[in-house]
Amino acid sequence: MSKGRLEAFSDGVIAIIITIMVLEMQAPHGTDVGALRPLIPVFSSYVLSFVHIGLYWNNHHHLLHAVKHVSGAILWSNLHLLFWLSLVPFVTAWMGENQFGQWPVALYGFVMLMAGIAYFILTRTLIRHHGPDSALRAAVGRDFKGQLSLVIYVAGILLSFANRWVALGLYVAVAFMWLVPDRRIERTIQ
Amino acid sequence: MSKGRLEAFSDGVIAIIITIMVLEMQAPHGTDVGALRPLIPVFSSYVLSFVHIGLYWNNHHHLLHAVKHVSGAILWSNLHLLFWLSLVPFVTAWMGENQFGQWPVALYGFVMLMAGIAYFILTRTLIRHHGPDSALRAAVGRDFKGQLSLVIYVAGILLSFANRWVALGLYVAVAFMWLVPDRRIERTIQ
Amino acid sequence: MSKGRLEAFSDGVIAIIITIMVLEMQAPHGTDVGALRPLIPVFSSYVLSFVHIGLYWNNHHHLLHAVKHVSGAILWSNLHLLFWLSLVPFVTAWMGENQFGQWPVALYGFVMLMAGIAYFILTRTLIRHHGPDSALRAAVGRDFKGQLSLVIYVAGILLSFANRWVALGLYVAVAFMWLVPDRRIERTIQ
Amino acid sequence: MSKGRLEAFSDGVIAIIITIMVLEMQAPHGTDVGALRPLIPVFSSYVLSFVHIGLYWNNHHHLLHAVKHVSGAILWSNLHLLFWLSLVPFVTAWMGENQFGQWPVALYGFVMLMAGIAYFILTRTLIRHHGPDSALRAAVGRDFKGQLSLVIYVAGILLSFANRWVALGLYVAVAFMWLVPDRRIERTIQ
Repeated sequence: MSKGRLEAFSDGVIAIIITIMVLEMQAPHGTDVGALRPLIPVFSSYVLSFVHIGLYWNNHHHLLHAVKHVSGAILWSNLHLLFWLSLVPFVTAWMGENQFGQWPVALYGFVMLMAGIAYFILTRTLIRHHGPDSALRAAVGRDFKGQLSLVIYVAGILLSFANRWVALGLYVAVAFMWLVPDRRIERTIQ
Repeated sequence: MSKGRLEAFSDGVIAIIITIMVLEMQAPHGTDVGALRPLIPVFSSYVLSFVHIGLYWNNHHHLLHAVKHVSGAILWSNLHLLFWLSLVPFVTAWMGENQFGQWPVALYGFVMLMAGIAYFILTRTLIRHHGPDSALRAAVGRDFKGQLSLVIYVAGILLSFANRWVALGLYVAVAFMWLVPDRRIERTIQ
Repeated sequence: MSKGRLEAFSDGVIAIIITIMVLEMQAPHGTDVGALRPLIPVFSSYVLSFVHIGLYWNNHHHLLHAVKHVSGAILWSNLHLLFWLSLVPFVTAWMGENQFGQWPVALYGFVMLMAGIAYFILTRTLIRHHGPDSALRAAVGRDFKGQLSLVIYVAGILLSFANRWVALGLYVAVAFMWLVPDRRIERTIQ
Repeated sequence: MSKGRLEAFSDGVIAIIITIMVLEMQAPHGTDVGALRPLIPVFSSYVLSFVHIGLYWNNHHHLLHAVKHVSGAILWSNLHLLFWLSLVPFVTAWMGENQFGQWPVALYGFVMLMAGIAYFILTRTLIRHHGPDSALRAAVGRDFKGQLSLVIYVAGILLSFANRWVALGLYVAVAFMWLVPDRRIERTIQ
């Protein structure tokens, strides 16, 4: 089975997720610049989620690039990832509309954690299907960043009840870790 | 006529259907974890519908894989299927926002039944176009699961007025029946 | 320039238009079957618009099939068509939520008329680009049905102020005219 | 890495942006033609934004046409452009619902300016990746219109506080400048 439609369907779902989040930012009734102030937390969570979803699309693009053929298990691992990503607009809205409350920040981290786990499962399913000597296996490598991200999300969820700004800072840190070119960060950490 | 755009259009519509359902889950105003409790039925119906739509995409992917060329009748059979699937967000919302009331549960089953019938019609239209000796005909086979699903949906619709939880259980059972690998279940039932 | 992205973009926009219309059908608060009754006109206009948009996608699919390359003028003729189609959800909602009032029915016809004219312009632009001896020119033919549709829409708009049900009947007739196989209807009319 | 998915994802996001803007135009409750009058500014901003987004898709289509392969930097330059375009529905709604108030008109220009800058960055990133002697470099040329657009947007933002209709006129002028065939306008200006 070819991977063309898997890519097309994932592109479609991710494109919709990244775009409908902006519907939460409803136009204010006033026309002063001050009318935009209540939207600052909504806008900030939108930016954070846009970058996260953009990262997933980017990584998905790279991952699928090395894929040769797909199986039923791969289709479902992919849908599982899309399921958790589809909840991002909801947690983004809850977090943004409530000035980054404790529970919203924790739930945001939880959905990100589950998306990270789903991505990890998808990676394993792909490797199992292509074999331990495949180009895909080599491309994924030790997946140090993927596993570190999961640890940071868990820390963020727990810390959101102590200090939600620290939790948010951790979520932002994960995004930065993926944004900067690969080798640099891995060397710094090791 | 090639099947490329038929697949692309179907992917687009199904991707949108599966994603806009999450818009029904509006962010609560409170920031307590308790504020999420009223969303549990909404979330549960979302999960049920996500799996159902995912199954349709999955099966559609497999079905179209064996297709060589398309006709006007095939385009319209496909649009007919997309029409019933496009009603899923509506019945999902009605069912989720009303704690699984009798009529909403029955209507949910009805839309699923009609989608199943539309899928059956699409299958027949494709087979008629490709001939009884085609690879497509062999791939579809006796379509035992497809026909059993229709019977279960009818049972669910009728039972929703006696006990809606039994009806819901039947809908969940259909999803499970399609999720587990093929041969196993068919052997168990036979 | 290749036509691939023109098709992909058009598929995307048409898929979204056909799907977001269902968002207008908001889940009622009651759980009785009677709670669905006020939705009947909304549902009816949804069906009418779904069929119309489906027809446009179908015809667009056929038309682009014979196209070899695209120009700037073709891109804009296509966007012009998508613009009028993008207004269909709006007029569908206005008509459905107001029990088919006179002005909503007239405006519905107007948007359909403009979409028809835009499709006509797109056809001419494509033919001009491919030459009078092209396969495309032959495939489009005399375009009897396209021009008859425009006449019927004008009649519908005018009649909507006398009797809106007659106007609606005319819109439905156009859809039927395109749904039934080609040769039959042309013979019947001639 | 191939450019196929970059195009598909961009097509998806732009198709959604151009279509969801119409959701802001909510069907009025009255059925008189007068009930449409309050929608005139909403409709006008929709048309302006539809043309702008259409222009971006058109130019993106041309730009990517000359691209051979993509890098991580290109993926992110492209996402950066999509980010600013994703804010267009928000500023369109704010401007349309407030009869073109000063701040909404200024913010509209700001988002358009940022989208223009993002497009400029994407162009440079693509050229850097393909080399100064590439066909892409030649196709982009001196990019006179792109840079003039940025200047006009800055002028529009500043003028929106003096006279917002002049500012709007400038935004419309940018759209026209891109709509008319290339050589003509460049000659007129030089």
